[in-house]
Parts: sequence; structure tokens; C-alpha cells
Amino acid sequence: MAPTKQKITFGIMLQGAGGHMHAWRHPSSPSDASVNIDFFKKTALRAEAAGIAFGFVADGLYINEKSIPHFLNRFEPLTVLSALASVTSRIGLAGTVSTSYSDPFTVARQFASLDLLSGGRAGWNAVTTPLEGTARNYSRQHPEHALRYEIAQEYLDVVKGLWDSWDDDAFLRNQQTGQFFDPAKLHRLDHKGRFFQVEGPLNIQRSPQGQPVVFQAGSSDAGIGLAGRHADAVFTHAVSVEENKTFLTRVKHAAVAHGRSADDVKIFPGIGPIVGRTQEEAEEKYRVICNLITIEDALAYLGRFFDHHDFSQYDLDAPFPELGDIGKNSFRSTTDRIKQVAREKGQTLREVALAAASPRDQFIGTPDTIADELIRWFDAGAADGFILGFPVIAEGLDDFVTLVLPILEQRGYFDGTLKATTLRENLGLPYRASRYSQEAVPEKARA
Amino acid sequence: MAPTKQKITFGIMLQGAGGHMHAWRHPSSPSDASVNIDFFKKTALRAEAAGIAFGFVADGLYINEKSIPHFLNRFEPLTVLSALASVTSRIGLAGTVSTSYSDPFTVARQFASLDLLSGGRAGWNAVTTPLEGTARNYSRQHPEHALRYEIAQEYLDVVKGLWDSWDDDAFLRNQQTGQFFDPAKLHRLDHKGRFFQVEGPLNIQRSPQGQPVVFQAGSSDAGIGLAGRHADAVFTHAVSVEENKTFLTRVKHAAVAHGRSADDVKIFPGIGPIVGRTQEEAEEKYRVICNLITIEDALAYLGRFFDHHDFSQYDLDAPFPELGDIGKNSFRSTTDRIKQVAREKGQTLREVALAAASPRDQFIGTPDTIADELIRWFDAGAADGFILGFPVIAEGLDDFVTLVLPILEQRGYFDGTLKATTLRENLGLPYRASRYSQEAVPEKARA
Ligand SMILES: Cc1cc2nc3c(=O)[nH]c(=O)nc-3n(C[C@H](O)[C@H](O)[C@H](O)COP(=O)(O)O)c2cc1C
Ligand SMILES: Cc1cc2nc3c(=O)[nH]c(=O)nc-3n(C[C@H](O)[C@H](O)[C@H](O)COP(=O)(O)O)c2cc1C
Repeated sequence: MAPTKQKITFGIMLQGAGGHMHAWRHPSSPSDASVNIDFFKKTALRAEAAGIAFGFVADGLYINEKSIPHFLNRFEPLTVLSALASVTSRIGLAGTVSTSYSDPFTVARQFASLDLLSGGRAGWNAVTTPLEGTARNYSRQHPEHALRYEIAQEYLDVVKGLWDSWDDDAFLRNQQTGQFFDPAKLHRLDHKGRFFQVEGPLNIQRSPQGQPVVFQAGSSDAGIGLAGRHADAVFTHAVSVEENKTFLTRVKHAAVAHGRSADDVKIFPGIGPIVGRTQEEAEEKYRVICNLITIEDALAYLGRFFDHHDFSQYDLDAPFPELGDIGKNSFRSTTDRIKQVAREKGQTLREVALAAASPRDQFIGTPDTIADELIRWFDAGAADGFILGFPVIAEGLDDFVTLVLPILEQRGYFDGTLKATTLRENLGLPYRASRYSQEAVPEKARA
Repeated sequence: MAPTKQKITFGIMLQGAGGHMHAWRHPSSPSDASVNIDFFKKTALRAEAAGIAFGFVADGLYINEKSIPHFLNRFEPLTVLSALASVTSRIGLAGTVSTSYSDPFTVARQFASLDLLSGGRAGWNAVTTPLEGTARNYSRQHPEHALRYEIAQEYLDVVKGLWDSWDDDAFLRNQQTGQFFDPAKLHRLDHKGRFFQVEGPLNIQRSPQGQPVVFQAGSSDAGIGLAGRHADAVFTHAVSVEENKTFLTRVKHAAVAHGRSADDVKIFPGIGPIVGRTQEEAEEKYRVICNLITIEDALAYLGRFFDHHDFSQYDLDAPFPELGDIGKNSFRSTTDRIKQVAREKGQTLREVALAAASPRDQFIGTPDTIADELIRWFDAGAADGFILGFPVIAEGLDDFVTLVLPILEQRGYFDGTLKATTLRENLGLPYRASRYSQEAVPEKARA
């Protein structure tokens, strides 16, 4: 074991029965997993005990009857993460909240509150919300892609400013003198920007990790720009070692361009491993998962990325249709990739839909081949860690924890116990000092 | 013991170390109580074990350096209530969220999520936000009093509509056939109103109590109008048996006028009992509490109700000043009462301020006199129950639970164990059937 080697960090997606659209049908799953708090607790505890650094609750604000099952009926991230905080002690608790459909004062507070009541374990995945239908649930217009990111930049300025409202030692709580706080250590934000005017201060103190960890999950140029300026961690697709290495390098360069250090932002490709004791067993598990869906389900799933476009109108076995601008204001990086692969491989609509609904993950195999592959990605500089989006959590987590993690640990790439009680520390990120703190090295000076 | 007698229901305010502005200085309090999750958990568990039906987390969205200590630094209600859900099993979990500074889709979801993960124990105190400064934290203008209530009425229409998005039996979760839900049991809201346009459906199912309990806390005519149409429970000031009886009757009439039954809305005056084994001991406890503050603290506290008006500019021992319109768009019913009492009693500013900061509660006394008084209020029809806002929680709850509740129980007015696992049931409210349910008696037909 090489004691000084950098370790691989893992997070786990908590998304109902799993990432597969019909994971709820799998024999190992509780069919109500997306609203089963006991299943969430059990999963979080199992992950924590195995040394997985954080749970991650994705989110969306618009459904219709074509949405996939675990999106139709699910817990809201901040509430479920707060409930998990009470039954866990070291695992980080990250969740998605949109910067396009919320108020920075409220969101700053809710994450600060989760952060404080969990002892410094909160993470916020700040997304700009791709689904246009969301606007119809929020009495407003859907801002287009570029504008969403402009809003997000200012939104994060506001939230981070509010998080620094109180210096670490602002609260004296001197029961003798009656001095509760030191007014010199209270900072009003007085933000007056293009989208937001927020006076502050926030009515909650900073946490043991300083500020919640900020995740970012958009992969477009604008998304990378947001990550460079604001993100502590980036959640991205796992495409290939080469592409992800390029992506990682671009994000770290963006961070450096904003006066931060390359180490200040950690990159997590999302993967969906399927482990078998033999390759055949892994393939058989994958087949079982593929067989959970019909082609109709698959078309509906595909439609989701294209703003709920109705794909049933096309010939299934003709080449993937020309879609023009459909969905261009939604999950753009995902839809661009789907179109590109379809063109390159000459796929039919059926092939595209089945591949989208039960994508063949690169991490299907034996414990050794999966461990090798994870190490290859890590050593190549394509990832700082991975977010485990098991197609079926109940089966996948158990397999991964008992079969893959011990190998990584043995090879010195993984720590089977969480060393710290804050998410920042478990991610290898420094305490986030306040902008007003004397110890806070100015960001510009660190690059 | 009279087995068929109606029982008194209690809730408890969870507000840091207690309702008194300097409760944190009391020797029995942890000085960081307002952000001490272990203190919240301990308090909630103690209350639950004693048969108190719900914890109640008040809230505000604007502070400045003059705000009282436990408002400066506190947990956000939905997150802390969700954390409490994991360590409790029967106590209701109610919290304040403003209808003037939030989005109905988000709030409907967060309460539905809390409701589901707690097994049907959520309550929402829908307030319109009196503090004008709030607008400066939310990039907008503060709506005036009447408009705030018009917004609130429509807001609650939307939220309740969203809560009925899915029929109780909408989710089939048939692992064999793959049918996850029955599309006929999904209802899109398509709300198009003056303030909100919300398509729906909500992405979460109904809870074991049907819908979260709706509390309301404004006492003006507009507040009563809102309660009559929408509230399951009303939180109000305890003024006197006569005045509260009038208030209770007005709210129940308002409910009937909206086609509901008088039993559909429960009235909870807020009280701050101080119990001593003797009257002298109770008075001594009160004196200790009064001595926690200086006159400067008291003036600042008073100012809060009048939109942070600076009272230090006036002569302390002159009659309470004429304030004209100051604060009329804030806590109107409270400020009207302060002015009225000052006029009637010819109080000086000093007297008004000290009385406001350490108000002499009507429930200061021995266990027997307090029990008598609670029964008198209840039997007179001035209250369905009470919300316990102990000036100092650590001391007050313990005294009340060990000294007063056993007497009420013995007299047949209280049940020392929570019979149900849903808040509605513990409040004596029926399951809230969906508007689309065949069993749902149309509201108009029930009056
Ligand atoms: C790995 C990944 C995870 C994402 N998770 C969410 C999510 O939980 N909720 C959401 O609304 N959007 C999510 N998104 C969408 C992005 O936040 C973003 O809005 C979208 O990808 C369009 O932006 P882009 O063109 O920069 O990628 C995710 C995107 C990626 C790539
Ligand atoms: C007993 C009581 C409790 C209240 N709790 C809150 C609260 O937690 N947060 C809040 O912003 N306003 C709270 N309010 C304020 C009311 O919601 C309302 O905005 C204010 O009283 C003005 O309305 P009114 O004139 O109808 O009383 C409370 C009021 C009363 C009477």
C-alpha cells in the first residue's frame, strides 16, 4: 500500500430504486423506493459504512405522464437530505436545487441550515434547469441557455456572499455580559446586481466546513465557466478517458483563470457499474436490467432529453430522425452527444432509444476489471472520483461495496473509512474561509 | 375520568432557548440553542413522550443587528423539521413559510416531502410576512397588507390543488406488468390565476394524512378570512377568555361561511406558562427571566413589531409616543394591541417596552392554578388547545410536563400519550380526502 497516493473519492446517487428508468421493477428493489425513507436511510448508512463520501439527490421541477417512474413521485432534496442527516454522521449530503427557479436568500438559508445541522456535510448541486416545462409550474418564462447561466453566476455570488454574513467567531454568547454577538463580525451583503438585489445578512452562522460544497453539473462552455468561477466539484458524464481528461483539464484551467487553484475543484464522472463474479454474471445482470423495459418506455425516456418530444411518431427502424432545434434549450450537452453518436454509428431510432434507456455502462465486468478501469481513469487524470449511479441500487451498491472497494483499498487507491466529519475534508478540499477572514488568502493570490 | 370528554391539545414552540428574547442567558439553557440540533432533538423527544401533539418552528426572513438573538442565527424550518422527523415517530412537525416570499410549487413539494418522510406529520404555518425589510432580501417590493392576503388566498388554492395531483391509489407499482401508475388517477392542476399560473402535476404522492395540516397565524379580518377558507388550525395570541372566545367564534363562523364545519378548524392561543410549586416560586422564576434583559434590549425588541422603529429617541418615562402609521404594514394586530393597552393603562414607554420584552403571561402560577386556568379557557370555548411558547424551554417544558400535564390528565382533559401517528389524527381532524376522491364529501355539503 502506498501511503501517500491520492485516493479515489466516491459519491452515490440516491434516486429511488436506481438510475435505470424501471429500476423499481427489479427483484432486489422495493417498488416504492423513490418515496421510501427507510430505503434511503439504509442506502445512506451502507454507503457511509463503506467509506463513500457523499450521497447525491438529483432533482427536477416538471413532470408529465411520460416522465420516468422515479421522477413522478420522489422526495424533495433538502427535506430528504435533512432527514438523512439525523441517522448518519460522516457521509456528505448533496442535492440539486435550480438557480433558475428559486430565491438565493431561501436557498442560501436552507443549505446553510442543512450544513449546520449535519455538522458540515451539505453539498449543493447548482443547476440551471434544462426542462422548459418547469416554467409552467412557476408562473414565468423559461430563460434560454445563456441567460440561465448568467443568472446562475450572479446567483452564486449572492449565495456565497450570504454564507459569509457572520464571521466564524461572531457569536460570543456571553451569558454573563449578555453580549450575544460582536457587531463588527456581522457583514451585510448589500448586493445590487442585474438579476438580484439582496441586502442580507443571512440569519444563520457558518458551518464546520465554512460553506456548503458547491457542485455544478452542466458541461457546456457556459457550464464550465460557472464551474471555473464557483464550483468545488463538478458532476459530469463519463464518456471516455480521453474525453474526460480533456474535460477535467478544461474545468481546472477555468478555475485557475478565475484565480483559484486546480485542486480547488474536483471532477466526478457519473458511472453505473454492474459487477459480476465473472464477466458472464455481469452481462447476465445487465440483461436482466435491459429486460425491465419495453420499446415504448424507451422512446418516452429518450423524449425527456428533448423537452418531452414525442418519438412514437417516427419509424422505429429508420435512421434516427433529424430534429432541428428541438430540445436545444434543454439538456444540450446530452442531446448533442446522442445526435452525434447516432450519426457516427448510423443508428436507428430503436437503437438510439434502447441505448438511451439502458445505456451500456463502461463499468460492467468483474471486480478486477472494474477496479483496473477505475484506476486507469484516475491515474490518467480523467477523474478525481466517481459518482456511482447504480442502475439498480439495492443490487449494485452491495456488489460494489463487497467486491470492488476492497480491491481498490488493497491497491492503495481507496480508504474504506471516512476520516472526517465534514464533506469538504472527505473530498480533500480545504475549509472554506470567509471572505472577511484574515486567514483567507485572497483567491487571486492562490493561482 | 370522563371518557368521552374532549381533550386539550398542545403544541410547543421550538424557538432556540425559548420565547424570551434573552432565553439563551438563562442558566438552564444551552446558549447556542437556536442552532443546536441536539437541543432541538431532545426537546422534541421530551414533548413527544409527554403527549404534546406538535412542535412548531416560527420563522422570519429579515434580520438586522437589532433583531433578537434567536432570530439572528437559527435553523430554517423545513430542514430542521425534516431532521427531527428521523428521530421522532408521533409528534407533529409544523413550520412557518411565507406566502409572500416563495413559490407555491416549491413549498407544496417541500411540505409534501416532509409529510411523506415523517409518515403524515407535517404542518405548514402559512404566513404573509409582516416585516417590510424582507423585500430587500428578495429583490422585490413588499406587498401591502391586503394584497399579501389576496396573494395568500390564491397561493393556498394552488398548493392544495398540487397536493391532490395523485389519487391515493394512483401508484400501482406492478412489478409484473410494469404499470407504475394509473394515468386516470393523475390530475394536472392547470391553475391560471391573478398571481400564479401553475400547470402541475406535483411530483410527489399524498401522505398518510392526505395533506399537511395548514396553520394560519394572522388575526386581522383578512387573516380570519384566510383561516376560514383554508386553515386547519389557527395560531393566535392569548388575550383573555372573553376576547379569545370571540376570536374563536369568528374563525369558526368564517369556516362555516366557506362551506366547512366548525370542527374543521382548531384554535390554538399561544401561552408562555411559568410553573412553580408555590406561587412565590413561580414569581421568582418570572423575576429571573425579567432580569435577563436591559431596557435597551427591551426597546429594540419593541421596535421589531414596528418595522424596527428606533424607540431610543424618546423619553423613557413619558407616555408611550404617538406613532401614526409606523408599523401599520407589519404585525398589525400586535401593534394595535400594544397601542391600545398603553392608552388604556396610561403606560410610559419604559413600561410598554419591559412588558413587551418580558410579557407577564396569564399562566404564571402553581400546577393547580395553571391547570384550572387552562380548563377554564377550554371549557369556555376560547381554545381547542394551546401552543406552549415557554419563555425558557429547558426549564419550562420540564416543569409543565412533570407538574401540570399529570393534573390535566387526571381530570380527564388530557391524554399523556399520542394515540396516532399522523398530525391530523392527533389534532382530532379527519383524514384530508382528495378533491377528486369519491368519498370526498363536497365541502359545500358539509356545513
Ligand atoms: C451529470 C449531470 C447531472 C445533472 N443533474 C441534474 C439535476 O439533478 N437536475 C437538473 O435539473 N439538471 C441536471 N443536469 C442538467 C444540468 O444542470 C444543465 O442544466 C444541463 O446539462 C444543460 O446545461 P449544459 O448545456 O451546460 O450541460 C445534470 C447534468 C449533468 C451533465
Ligand atoms: C401567534 C402568531 C404567530 C405568528 N408567527 C409568525 C411567524 O412565524 N413568522 C412570520 O413571519 N409571521 C408570523 N406571524 C405574523 C402573521 O403571520 C401576520 O403576518 C401578521 O400577524 C400580520 O397579519 P395580521 O394583521 O392578520 O395579524 C404570527 C402572528 C401571530 C399572531
